[in-house]
Amino acid sequence: MRANAIRTNLIDGKVIVNAWLSIPAGYSAEGIGWCGFDSVTVDMQHGMISYEAALCMLQAISATPAVPIVRVPSLDPPMIMRMLDSGAYGIICPMISTRAEAEALVSACRYPPVGTRSFGPSRGLLYGGTDYVAHANETVMVIPMIETPQAVEEIDRILSVVGVDMIYVGPNDLAMAMDGSNVGQTPKSAAAIIHILERAKKAGIPAGIFCADAEDASRRLEQGFVLVTPGNDFGTLTRAARAAVGMVRGRASELLPGGY
Amino acid sequence: MRANAIRTNLIDGKVIVNAWLSIPAGYSAEGIGWCGFDSVTVDMQHGMISYEAALCMLQAISATPAVPIVRVPSLDPPMIMRMLDSGAYGIICPMISTRAEAEALVSACRYPPVGTRSFGPSRGLLYGGTDYVAHANETVMVIPMIETPQAVEEIDRILSVVGVDMIYVGPNDLAMAMDGSNVGQTPKSAAAIIHILERAKKAGIPAGIFCADAEDASRRLEQGFVLVTPGNDFGTLTRAARAAVGMVRGRASELLPGGY
Amino acid sequence: MRANAIRTNLIDGKVIVNAWLSIPAGYSAEGIGWCGFDSVTVDMQHGMISYEAALCMLQAISATPAVPIVRVPSLDPPMIMRMLDSGAYGIICPMISTRAEAEALVSACRYPPVGTRSFGPSRGLLYGGTDYVAHANETVMVIPMIETPQAVEEIDRILSVVGVDMIYVGPNDLAMAMDGSNVGQTPKSAAAIIHILERAKKAGIPAGIFCADAEDASRRLEQGFVLVTPGNDFGTLTRAARAAVGMVRGRASELLPGGY
Amino acid sequence: MRANAIRTNLIDGKVIVNAWLSIPAGYSAEGIGWCGFDSVTVDMQHGMISYEAALCMLQAISATPAVPIVRVPSLDPPMIMRMLDSGAYGIICPMISTRAEAEALVSACRYPPVGTRSFGPSRGLLYGGTDYVAHANETVMVIPMIETPQAVEEIDRILSVVGVDMIYVGPNDLAMAMDGSNVGQTPKSAAAIIHILERAKKAGIPAGIFCADAEDASRRLEQGFVLVTPGNDFGTLTRAARAAVGMVRGRASELLPGGY
Amino acid sequence: MRANAIRTNLIDGKVIVNAWLSIPAGYSAEGIGWCGFDSVTVDMQHGMISYEAALCMLQAISATPAVPIVRVPSLDPPMIMRMLDSGAYGIICPMISTRAEAEALVSACRYPPVGTRSFGPSRGLLYGGTDYVAHANETVMVIPMIETPQAVEEIDRILSVVGVDMIYVGPNDLAMAMDGSNVGQTPKSAAAIIHILERAKKAGIPAGIFCADAEDASRRLEQGFVLVTPGNDFGTLTRAARAAVGMVRGRASELLPGGY
Amino acid sequence: MRANAIRTNLIDGKVIVNAWLSIPAGYSAEGIGWCGFDSVTVDMQHGMISYEAALCMLQAISATPAVPIVRVPSLDPPMIMRMLDSGAYGIICPMISTRAEAEALVSACRYPPVGTRSFGPSRGLLYGGTDYVAHANETVMVIPMIETPQAVEEIDRILSVVGVDMIYVGPNDLAMAMDGSNVGQTPKSAAAIIHILERAKKAGIPAGIFCADAEDASRRLEQGFVLVTPGNDFGTLTRAARAAVGMVRGRASELLPGGY
Repeated sequence: MRANAIRTNLIDGKVIVNAWLSIPAGYSAEGIGWCGFDSVTVDMQHGMISYEAALCMLQAISATPAVPIVRVPSLDPPMIMRMLDSGAYGIICPMISTRAEAEALVSACRYPPVGTRSFGPSRGLLYGGTDYVAHANETVMVIPMIETPQAVEEIDRILSVVGVDMIYVGPNDLAMAMDGSNVGQTPKSAAAIIHILERAKKAGIPAGIFCADAEDASRRLEQGFVLVTPGNDFGTLTRAARAAVGMVRGRASELLPGGY
Repeated sequence: MRANAIRTNLIDGKVIVNAWLSIPAGYSAEGIGWCGFDSVTVDMQHGMISYEAALCMLQAISATPAVPIVRVPSLDPPMIMRMLDSGAYGIICPMISTRAEAEALVSACRYPPVGTRSFGPSRGLLYGGTDYVAHANETVMVIPMIETPQAVEEIDRILSVVGVDMIYVGPNDLAMAMDGSNVGQTPKSAAAIIHILERAKKAGIPAGIFCADAEDASRRLEQGFVLVTPGNDFGTLTRAARAAVGMVRGRASELLPGGY
Repeated sequence: MRANAIRTNLIDGKVIVNAWLSIPAGYSAEGIGWCGFDSVTVDMQHGMISYEAALCMLQAISATPAVPIVRVPSLDPPMIMRMLDSGAYGIICPMISTRAEAEALVSACRYPPVGTRSFGPSRGLLYGGTDYVAHANETVMVIPMIETPQAVEEIDRILSVVGVDMIYVGPNDLAMAMDGSNVGQTPKSAAAIIHILERAKKAGIPAGIFCADAEDASRRLEQGFVLVTPGNDFGTLTRAARAAVGMVRGRASELLPGGY
Repeated sequence: MRANAIRTNLIDGKVIVNAWLSIPAGYSAEGIGWCGFDSVTVDMQHGMISYEAALCMLQAISATPAVPIVRVPSLDPPMIMRMLDSGAYGIICPMISTRAEAEALVSACRYPPVGTRSFGPSRGLLYGGTDYVAHANETVMVIPMIETPQAVEEIDRILSVVGVDMIYVGPNDLAMAMDGSNVGQTPKSAAAIIHILERAKKAGIPAGIFCADAEDASRRLEQGFVLVTPGNDFGTLTRAARAAVGMVRGRASELLPGGY
Repeated sequence: MRANAIRTNLIDGKVIVNAWLSIPAGYSAEGIGWCGFDSVTVDMQHGMISYEAALCMLQAISATPAVPIVRVPSLDPPMIMRMLDSGAYGIICPMISTRAEAEALVSACRYPPVGTRSFGPSRGLLYGGTDYVAHANETVMVIPMIETPQAVEEIDRILSVVGVDMIYVGPNDLAMAMDGSNVGQTPKSAAAIIHILERAKKAGIPAGIFCADAEDASRRLEQGFVLVTPGNDFGTLTRAARAAVGMVRGRASELLPGGY
Repeated sequence: MRANAIRTNLIDGKVIVNAWLSIPAGYSAEGIGWCGFDSVTVDMQHGMISYEAALCMLQAISATPAVPIVRVPSLDPPMIMRMLDSGAYGIICPMISTRAEAEALVSACRYPPVGTRSFGPSRGLLYGGTDYVAHANETVMVIPMIETPQAVEEIDRILSVVGVDMIYVGPNDLAMAMDGSNVGQTPKSAAAIIHILERAKKAGIPAGIFCADAEDASRRLEQGFVLVTPGNDFGTLTRAARAAVGMVRGRASELLPGGY
């Protein structure tokens, strides 16, 4: 079975730079897959992505060096199994708040006797190889999101679940849930993030986090996160586009006072 | 009928900043439509865009302040008419090299008695309004691309065609066709572009041009182009994504010598 | 943030005429959006509409004056959040039968600290505006469907849930559930509907209802409903088409006795 | 091979009521197919319909009693052959103005030695049957549109082309082309239509026509047309929807003076 | 209402040969529908099939003699109801392990007063007929999958649920769950399958089973299963394609020693 | 730039086994790509494949070892350029009958100064590499189909066109065009095929051919063809499926006389 380069790289002590896709198109997915990211995550929770688009995007990512990951909409085992069957090599699952939820997530991602994943590997066989079923349990990564106050409280219990390969912090949801903030981190949520990170290090579980952009991602690396996501495709595109419009309009207003 | 803001702005002496879409998704199209561009062009020649995607993208752009334009694959009247029926307010047509081709282009875009556009306004009525048919001939913009050596030679004859509302220079095709260059402008093609621009000014026809990025677009404004396209969505996205990866990897290599 | 015209109109004492879409196409959605309806509902429960189609339809509706609403398949918070992220300004949720379900529905539609909606506004930012997150809780409408015997019994408790902005009666399901009827209203279900309406008026909560057609809708307005849905697109289309065939065949049989 | 009921019915002296689809959805196509029409035409010229949607619509129509027809975008043989391969039992081709064009149309629709249709029956085998290739030439209908002044002049020569099974008048394009009218028929175009009809009758070729609605279609039957299209799906839907809104708003304004 | 030929055939003592679709395309679905199968199952659990594709596939199957069935992803009533509304004449539901789950499955598939299916028959009316709602409860087949150790234990209680029309054995999941096997049947799971079959016979409930291929299916018929699925479309296609490549390469290596 | 393994293998004297896709799905395309074929051809002429599906299929094939080829609908340069931009490494073009047509085909596939392909490599850069434009002319294969009587006559002139990398025989169209046959080869067309093959060998141009199945392909290898296509996906699937049904029904009729 094709190895999961995220696992290998983490073992080798390398950091993982992860892309985040919310635009439902195989073309942009494939383009991002060639940009140097270690992994590319198809976001089916907040991204504007149908199953049909996700499948095409996973195929497109498979033609690049990046590892395909899916952020599923919720802890819904049938949906998680579908995305694994579709070739995802990692599942990021939002809103895991308890040990029981983490266990349910692991169970959905693992074939018996370890878990309860249903047999029907489909595209997994194409991306992973014909021996997919024998090795999937050790290859596919299970990544609960830590983004609720309850998860912060129960962090040690979540981290102790066998089969949790990494955790992924959702800082925006955490700040909203802890402080009702819609303008980013608060002192309380920032502290919680550091706490989560420390507990994860202690437990020997790698920790990743969603970041606003590359600068924020760099800062998170300094804090000790080993997987960072420097924003999503839509934000990256529109920020850059707005910057381009700004530069051109600026030049235009110099050239054409009264125009714009 | 809804006015064509590109026409109005050009009359008012304003420059037009135009976006260029090659990613087949309504979500990115709509996002780009809110970035401050005057117009957004759906590229059906080199973009990875089906008719189905183009239709959804035109609808998405219609929900933004930007004017929807389509770059059609070729001088194929039925296809041009379809995109107008689908709500395009401008047609950019590649590879117009002669007066006859420019006339054929105008004819395809205009209802009788001016042209030969077939009746069946469909989505044009939704975007333009119920009086679309009466006013479409004066509203929709016809924009031949000037990108062949022959077009450079025949530029005055092309510019003299009644109904040509603007020309749009394709610098890459021009450089390839004139000098076999695949690394951008050559002295000869650069001179040809200036020549085209001067003839257009003389003829009172606004000239637009595809640019590599915002910097290139600013330079083109200085030259006198009034519509500039600072690169396409795919290039903007992947350039920014690669820059982000580079910044994060740079920070990582400082933090983790031996990692990356 | 763009105001929700349904809210404003209800406050102003106006009635709301709502369209109901089951045909999975952006073109018909956009066409309906220009027909004079105050709101257009994309039906993801009984409509033949995938997420991909729903997204394109919401974009198409956004290019019209109508307010986009989604009827979700069920009380499934991740799905509800997706449709809000996709730009719905109202959620009609079927089969809400208890106070707890109504509370769960409100919670899914509201950001913390009021509810548990996950952060990731996506297309909400495009339709609503850049301040979407700050104002979404007061803008998006939460509309439980009342269509079970249990809901009739618990109607006061459902109406008392803070955050329920309107109720929407499903008369067909109610008639089936109360009397096993598949031929429309029964005396018992008709009485239950009046009862629901009276309790809603008493509680100061606007009440809407699905209607067979315009005539039925007019009758419901007389009863006191303030939002009415005069049938769905598929029914409207096929009824009108069958009438057209009937008229033409009728004329044909007069002209061609023995033909049809 | 499955018989073409349009051919059979015409031979039996029956009139054909034809539906016209511009909404790109299999669901509405299938619904229309059960409304009593003899044939259902997928409009790929002015309809908002991609190849992908057309294929799904043809499959949906195949599940109904109606005969599937396609109006192609233009006299483009590869496109015509594709739609035949996709299961169309008739091709309506716009803008046929000369004998040569009519011959080219017939040629594109017929296998050698009669014509030049390329072998590759694909879905034709599924809809028509395994003996499709042997009988397709006698089953599939070739229907040029008569809608240009030149076609009116050359009508006898077009009608004399062997293989033209029917003609179909496009009254709107004819009125525009003859008189620049965008408000429907003019005396000149009305006379031309009568002339076309008479020449067709004389030649023994059935004549069909696009109509505004059922009333217009009834009038055309009286004139002698044997195939009529009482408007398209989009027009039927939006007219009926606007009528419904009007009725409900009318009742509302009686009930709520000052509301609407 | 159109009869369900699976029901009729089973009553007549005939065996059912069932196809299984995992390729998301209407064309292959329609092709398979003409291959002689009694029923064709659209697999939405392990198949790579979105709702949009499933709808188009159900329409395509409806144009063939085969009965359309859907294997849903899980016991999720809203999803089950959607697929019934989309025209499925049978629901195969994975992982039914208890009497309560079987009852919930029946309830989701039946209109009141028998069950809790929500009213909104949509495409059911097109495939089934205008009297669909009156007869759907007796027509649509409810088929729980038996594929867990718990289901084996509770088999009699599952079989006793009124409304269970057939059971369908998932041998691969059963072998995995019972013995952690990923290489097919084990003695224990093979014995369990025979046990299930015998209990079903005793209860008068027909039993079906997924098979590796036609040979396996023939063996299952001998055992007494009355519905067999000889593999899925993807396996059938790729097995046959690999065999073709093998034969051609074999001949090539004879002809071109040193080539391949 | 990624090498074109078809070119390399042909130079090495190896035969090419080519797959042919008419089912519009990325999943089956990817599956076929792993079956051992050297190349996989997406058939946009007779296959039921939209541009959107073709793009997804090319991405899916790119994730496999097979070389992606497209059979375009016709000698339409804009369409040919689109498919190259979409990542095709070879273009098979139907109905090339003259030297001029072969030259036009080569021109459409080559960048200036060799040809007239328009600049805009898009997905070509992703599949081929960042130096795509510099090397595409030597990498992409131009493959005219020889399938008309005129092409047989002009075969030497077609073979002499610089840039024709291979020819591909269409035996069915040839038999139809030469003898009106719809039941396969005739003595005349069989002789013509041998003639084409001999002239190609003489000219040093590799010759490929479409075959009914693996047996036919093996026979063509013996004749000297170096690229063979053992049928298409749809035929392979339905033949195998019908065989499976036949085997199961055969066993059933033995077990259940009177059943089937």
